[in-house]
Amino acid sequence: MNDLTELPTPALLVDVDVLQRNIDEMASYAERAGVALRPHAKTHKTPAIADLQRAAGAQGLTVATVAEAEVFAAAGHTDLFVAYPLWLDHDRARRVSALLERADLTLGLDSPEAARRMAAQLGSDAGRPRVLVEVDSGHHRSGVDPDAAGEVAEAAGHAGLDVAGVFTFPGHSYSPGAQDDVAAQEADALTRAVASFERRGLEARVVSGGSTPTMATSRTEVMTELRPGVYVFGDAQQWELGTTTPDRIALTCWATVVSHAGGRVVLDSGSKVLGADRPAWASGHGRLLDHPAARVVLLSEHHAVAEWDGGVPPPLGTRVRVVPNHACNAVNLVDELVVVRDGAVVDRWTVAARGANT
Amino acid sequence: MNDLTELPTPALLVDVDVLQRNIDEMASYAERAGVALRPHAKTHKTPAIADLQRAAGAQGLTVATVAEAEVFAAAGHTDLFVAYPLWLDHDRARRVSALLERADLTLGLDSPEAARRMAAQLGSDAGRPRVLVEVDSGHHRSGVDPDAAGEVAEAAGHAGLDVAGVFTFPGHSYSPGAQDDVAAQEADALTRAVASFERRGLEARVVSGGSTPTMATSRTEVMTELRPGVYVFGDAQQWELGTTTPDRIALTCWATVVSHAGGRVVLDSGSKVLGADRPAWASGHGRLLDHPAARVVLLSEHHAVAEWDGGVPPPLGTRVRVVPNHACNAVNLVDELVVVRDGAVVDRWTVAARGANT
Repeated sequence: MNDLTELPTPALLVDVDVLQRNIDEMASYAERAGVALRPHAKTHKTPAIADLQRAAGAQGLTVATVAEAEVFAAAGHTDLFVAYPLWLDHDRARRVSALLERADLTLGLDSPEAARRMAAQLGSDAGRPRVLVEVDSGHHRSGVDPDAAGEVAEAAGHAGLDVAGVFTFPGHSYSPGAQDDVAAQEADALTRAVASFERRGLEARVVSGGSTPTMATSRTEVMTELRPGVYVFGDAQQWELGTTTPDRIALTCWATVVSHAGGRVVLDSGSKVLGADRPAWASGHGRLLDHPAARVVLLSEHHAVAEWDGGVPPPLGTRVRVVPNHACNAVNLVDELVVVRDGAVVDRWTVAARGANT
Repeated sequence: MNDLTELPTPALLVDVDVLQRNIDEMASYAERAGVALRPHAKTHKTPAIADLQRAAGAQGLTVATVAEAEVFAAAGHTDLFVAYPLWLDHDRARRVSALLERADLTLGLDSPEAARRMAAQLGSDAGRPRVLVEVDSGHHRSGVDPDAAGEVAEAAGHAGLDVAGVFTFPGHSYSPGAQDDVAAQEADALTRAVASFERRGLEARVVSGGSTPTMATSRTEVMTELRPGVYVFGDAQQWELGTTTPDRIALTCWATVVSHAGGRVVLDSGSKVLGADRPAWASGHGRLLDHPAARVVLLSEHHAVAEWDGGVPPPLGTRVRVVPNHACNAVNLVDELVVVRDGAVVDRWTVAARGANT
């Protein structure tokens, strides 16, 4: 069934040519900047897409969980960084130990307690696991104060870990107009963290940052590595932040107009396929790629209700492409991505790390 | 592994005693009111829970999609109502035809066009498929104006469908203090819809309504059937609307404190297990069942950041129970529910209809 018009809806489509362009552009950007590219695989959770990123020059992958690391390692991607403040309980420690035997693994942490816990749980058989210290560059999610990074690094070293450097995620870049200021804060935080290492006689070999919204404004001169994720697909958040353009959006939800109740356009793409992300600054619950004036004003689990601003609303049964607000949460709702080129289905990719939360 | 403290996090827990109490209380309520109970299975997507609802007296199940109907029919639940304004494309028509041969199926629609399409797509082999006409009781999502319900019913009858009655979903009940007014609007809409049928000489044998927030205020005297869904678990939305109490919340996310960065409490339960629902009136991105003063102020895919109002924040590694804002979207993120009783794991239930969107 290669005919897109016959595809059951809702389904997530990936335009493979747009995807490849996004991958190539980011690889070129990192190469020009002289930094390693380690894309965040939580966005796509799909080994077939990781293959394309690696083929374009990505050094390795970033993941968010041990379970994601397991999936990508099993698919042959063994240079992996778990960019998360890990607290190793017995289960995670057992799984990390197993991964250390077959993958080139780097782990995140953000406190002396977590470092001592990690070293104790992994034991001496694990050698000296490589870690990066997370610092808070202003998002106020996790990560230690940059000036205290050296203290965490020293504790980790004393506990027996190989402290390779620092990382941050400038997530407060997801706000209109914030990208340049946030990139400057990120650079300041990373610079202070490196200095904090040096005050204790430690070297930060890896200085890792980046987010899709800050790509154009990243101060790559202070970094050795970039970890963007969403760039591979783009989404309505990036579109409305102005950090991507509609022609660069590779992921859409194929949806059917099921009702014209009350003069509205009701689509069968609800929050169970788009995700429910809806930042206060967004214009709605996703966008319509081919109808930029339309707004998704109401979203429930199986209904996306759109207001059609200008033009004739599409007839019942029409198929449209809906751009999710947040690609990462949309992809995690499906078992496969339908790969399209020039309006035809050319492949299907398994979202192998869907639900890999632990 | 029956010890909850050893369970990998994040995981969704169902307290089976609380669940059973919720099921029994709703069954008693419907019985006292003299109406049929047809719980919405999109909330749990779990045949094991549907079994408990049926055992307590539920007449059948409500589902949102043809794919959910397929899953529950395969699990032996054959009295099914697809409460959705269906537009039958070739794929859905083929699957509905197959279901009609083995299930007692009722279908939703909300326009003459959808009725004619349905009859044409299913063909005469399907007999006279039973349908309910959806009316809009003020939520403004889908559904025809109640005064026009008879017109849709007449068109459906002429097309060869068996029009059994009307249904509505008063979804605008998800707003603080709105429940009594919305229940009154629902009753008015259903009453007008029945009158609209009668003006054309048609009988509405089924008059179906209800939502969890309006359960206490439902005008059951105008209905033959109630379709609540969330009541089975409860969630933070219901807690904050005042339509359930914390001791009635059966679904929680088992999460670990992974960081104290910046004096915050960072949990490993992000939007990829809780869902990203966050209505403007909610106090945060979910609640902590055993710490009602805490607030989840920031949610990303793998972090829930809580502010601890009073008391000592829990140490790193502590396990806590997080109540999702919206149970239906949380359950759709996992492959199984961990069933607990008195703090021990007693079973695991497969979320068989996870991702069943088509």
